[in-house]
Amino acid sequence: MNKEQLIAEIKRKQSFLCVGLDTDMDKIPAHLLETEDPIYEFNKAIIDATKDYCVAYKPNIAFYECLGPKGWESLKKTLDYIPDSIFTIADAKRGDIGNTSRYYAKTFFEYLNFDAVTIAPYMGEDSITPFLEFKDKWVIVLALTSNKGALDFQFMTDLNGEKLYEKVLKKTSKWGTPENLMYVVGATRAEGIGQVRKSVPNNFFLVPGIGAQGGSLAEVTRYGWNTDCGLLVNSSRGIIYASNGTDFAEKAQEKAQEIQAQMHSILTEKGW
Amino acid sequence: MNKEQLIAEIKRKQSFLCVGLDTDMDKIPAHLLETEDPIYEFNKAIIDATKDYCVAYKPNIAFYECLGPKGWESLKKTLDYIPDSIFTIADAKRGDIGNTSRYYAKTFFEYLNFDAVTIAPYMGEDSITPFLEFKDKWVIVLALTSNKGALDFQFMTDLNGEKLYEKVLKKTSKWGTPENLMYVVGATRAEGIGQVRKSVPNNFFLVPGIGAQGGSLAEVTRYGWNTDCGLLVNSSRGIIYASNGTDFAEKAQEKAQEIQAQMHSILTEKGW
Repeated sequence: MNKEQLIAEIKRKQSFLCVGLDTDMDKIPAHLLETEDPIYEFNKAIIDATKDYCVAYKPNIAFYECLGPKGWESLKKTLDYIPDSIFTIADAKRGDIGNTSRYYAKTFFEYLNFDAVTIAPYMGEDSITPFLEFKDKWVIVLALTSNKGALDFQFMTDLNGEKLYEKVLKKTSKWGTPENLMYVVGATRAEGIGQVRKSVPNNFFLVPGIGAQGGSLAEVTRYGWNTDCGLLVNSSRGIIYASNGTDFAEKAQEKAQEIQAQMHSILTEKGW
Repeated sequence: MNKEQLIAEIKRKQSFLCVGLDTDMDKIPAHLLETEDPIYEFNKAIIDATKDYCVAYKPNIAFYECLGPKGWESLKKTLDYIPDSIFTIADAKRGDIGNTSRYYAKTFFEYLNFDAVTIAPYMGEDSITPFLEFKDKWVIVLALTSNKGALDFQFMTDLNGEKLYEKVLKKTSKWGTPENLMYVVGATRAEGIGQVRKSVPNNFFLVPGIGAQGGSLAEVTRYGWNTDCGLLVNSSRGIIYASNGTDFAEKAQEKAQEIQAQMHSILTEKGW
């Protein structure tokens, strides 16, 4: 999916919500455990319930990998089930030497047909560029993450006062363009979002951390908005585990609709 | 496997060689492609041929993932085939928020039963500590990598003259111990190995980059050796693709034996 198509979907659905499919065998409703592929059945129901209120889905690969080959089958079936008009993100946080990154790129962009994959920047240019060679596919580089450990290295400051996450933005934004490169910017650091926006005015941000992690949608929009909207705001647990009963899909729909309504207000205010 | 067992194997085999199982469908001998599981058949033959000359195997997960569920089956079968006395490393370069890292840890340490997994440090403490909670399992943190892109961020210097990779060593070495924490230190930066050794005198290093990437075993030993040996030196392509004919296992054995002989000389010189 290219940027224009993504923006068109945001306008059409009046939403910039990404639903995180962190589907966990220990958390899905008990009645699904009797089906042949509980992970897929859960995802299918969540997708049916939420697809009108979101523009992206983001399966976190860890939750599928831990089930072995069966997990990969559930993931593949889930990807095939998501409507083509919805942007798909492999939250994989990969990154290796160029030779190896090419294989990760093939996995996520060709075999699984994701639109985007998240990448850790520690290994530098040749770990990222192999992902940028695929037409209408996206790299989402970790810039400022939402977790406590973000403080350990991402705020390291060099002799010119530049922080590590700023260096990541400056360098990586030369390797890609706003047409194929987004950044992970955590909602738990709202002022940080503003700093990142100054460095990379034209790139989309994938923003985790609203809901369970405590970030606020109003703050995220205040600091992160750009002329393209420029935001995909993710919620995982707050939506998909809104209930663990037989009404899980219904409750997930209510939560997704609630966030979409807030986004609709924001978009209306912005003249979208 | 614990540190004492690893050291005992290094002494017994007179080797600190790690063989990288970067098994690639496009590079394995043509006659194997007719078998039911070419990746596994290749690995099995390589393991049979090299197991007396190495103390560790390191499958790079990218090469298995790109084959979907079948790749994970080949990986699982490979792990089950490797003798228990040999240390196994999942070269996965994972790292995510704590909640998610726990799932990656389960995948590699429980489901696949690896001894160790490589981790990218960008997301900080909570992305690493979940892996350190498993008894006799190891985290191998990326410190100084062997690729060109290592220069992009790893050498960033703060106000006190401390480089990013040094900060990674200083912080992570407080989260784990030399009994459960190793570092990736590329052979292509021999003086760098010496710097890392000064910061973390007691930890093992996993050293990629000899052979295809150009690093030298003598230099690696000169700068990286400690009283525990402290080195696992990896060769992947130089061994497993020494020939692409029906003699691939024989040629791999010759290459592994050649490196082991060099290591034997070094160990003898050190009084091991």
